[in-house]
Amino acid sequence: MEQLSLGQYSLVYNSFSFVTATMAAATVFLFLSRSQIASHYKTAVTVAGIVTMIAMYHYFRIFNSWDQAYSVVNGVATATGHPFNDAYRYVDWLLTVPLLVTELILVMRLSGNEGTKKASRLAILAVIMVLFGYPGEISNVSSTRWLWWSLSMIPFLIIQFELFVGLRSSIALQPDSVRGMVSSARYITVVTWLFYPIVFILPMIGLTGANAVVGVQVGYSVADVLAKAAFGLFIYNIALKKTHSDVEASHPLSPDALVAL
Amino acid sequence: MEQLSLGQYSLVYNSFSFVTATMAAATVFLFLSRSQIASHYKTAVTVAGIVTMIAMYHYFRIFNSWDQAYSVVNGVATATGHPFNDAYRYVDWLLTVPLLVTELILVMRLSGNEGTKKASRLAILAVIMVLFGYPGEISNVSSTRWLWWSLSMIPFLIIQFELFVGLRSSIALQPDSVRGMVSSARYITVVTWLFYPIVFILPMIGLTGANAVVGVQVGYSVADVLAKAAFGLFIYNIALKKTHSDVEASHPLSPDALVAL
Repeated sequence: MEQLSLGQYSLVYNSFSFVTATMAAATVFLFLSRSQIASHYKTAVTVAGIVTMIAMYHYFRIFNSWDQAYSVVNGVATATGHPFNDAYRYVDWLLTVPLLVTELILVMRLSGNEGTKKASRLAILAVIMVLFGYPGEISNVSSTRWLWWSLSMIPFLIIQFELFVGLRSSIALQPDSVRGMVSSARYITVVTWLFYPIVFILPMIGLTGANAVVGVQVGYSVADVLAKAAFGLFIYNIALKKTHSDVEASHPLSPDALVAL
Repeated sequence: MEQLSLGQYSLVYNSFSFVTATMAAATVFLFLSRSQIASHYKTAVTVAGIVTMIAMYHYFRIFNSWDQAYSVVNGVATATGHPFNDAYRYVDWLLTVPLLVTELILVMRLSGNEGTKKASRLAILAVIMVLFGYPGEISNVSSTRWLWWSLSMIPFLIIQFELFVGLRSSIALQPDSVRGMVSSARYITVVTWLFYPIVFILPMIGLTGANAVVGVQVGYSVADVLAKAAFGLFIYNIALKKTHSDVEASHPLSPDALVAL
């Protein structure tokens, strides 16, 4: 492990604690608020909460692993020799990235089997993307990192293209009240996901030693909060708007409409 | 305990953490989504969630036991002398295997007492199967392992036969929309259950030392994810489809049908 200043050690330590609390908060909010969502969109909200719950578990483990990797005495952080387990992130992504794609497609409620097919294809690509990233992440050799990064970018770009171009026709079929939001959800996915390959290459483009450790850990933490917790709340808002517009559609003769007659 | 390389130790460590997270995710999904299932099939989904919950508990214990069995300092994994408790798996199976059989039979909703009778008979056979496996698992003597494996295979094969041939006539009585899925659930059971006797014999067919330990632990982890979490989600999907087809059957005069009149 790299030697860190106390400030660097604490920044990572507190970031991990922050993300654990944020994921827990998002999970409980999504699970409780699920009861206000119409049956058709409930599964999207359930999956959004499960994504943040899985992330909460892994940040709890990452926090403990970081805690064990250094001992802080009299203001100095010293490596204990106990390894910091980076693999938790990849185990997390293996589960959560396919589910993130699924929650977006579920809230769109595509007709027939189209949604299931699209979600399955993108979930498989997401698993391949994560598996390709791992051998690069655990390597300190720049060329090895670039090789696996490039391989991982292939499924990454296919997913981004599928979400962006492949879903464009489905956007037109969304109810008026949420069309803009569903379209934004694709942009948010593209932008938040871009954090990951950028954080990955930080140690390859000049960030070294302790700065590389801090940059990667804090970078992934920010990316996870945006791509999972913030994205989950956005999905919840789409589901809520759709719930309201479905209620209006099924009761065209609402009290207001009756008064107008 | 066998000496393991850091890579071998970490692979098992991360597999256990992965299974814990997967079982937790499946449990929460099944318990929450239970509200979207018609009353007749709710118990099948409840039981599916209880199976993954029991497995989550045991993988949490197995993870801790593995963590205590080795100490990792400066990239070397050394056995601490603290035993790795393999019995957690058998305690888990003693509870979950009878419940897995039960969830399949519950979702089929056989008429009268037929379901209860079938589920009880298969559950008793499952308990005998697990009890016969354990004396073999804790033995390092190949002939002892083969003896108990063979004894355990007798109830194993009876269960497989009962599920496959005994349930065939009931498949024909399933609603059209799920007949294929219910039939697939039997195949999935047969295939995922086959992992267990195969993983069991890995140390008897040439896998030795550290490779045997890693093969058995990762093998059982994969088998448990497929036979419990993936199977549970499949049972949920059958229950959801049956819920929809029951709703349609009980409201043949939907608003669209009324307009057509």
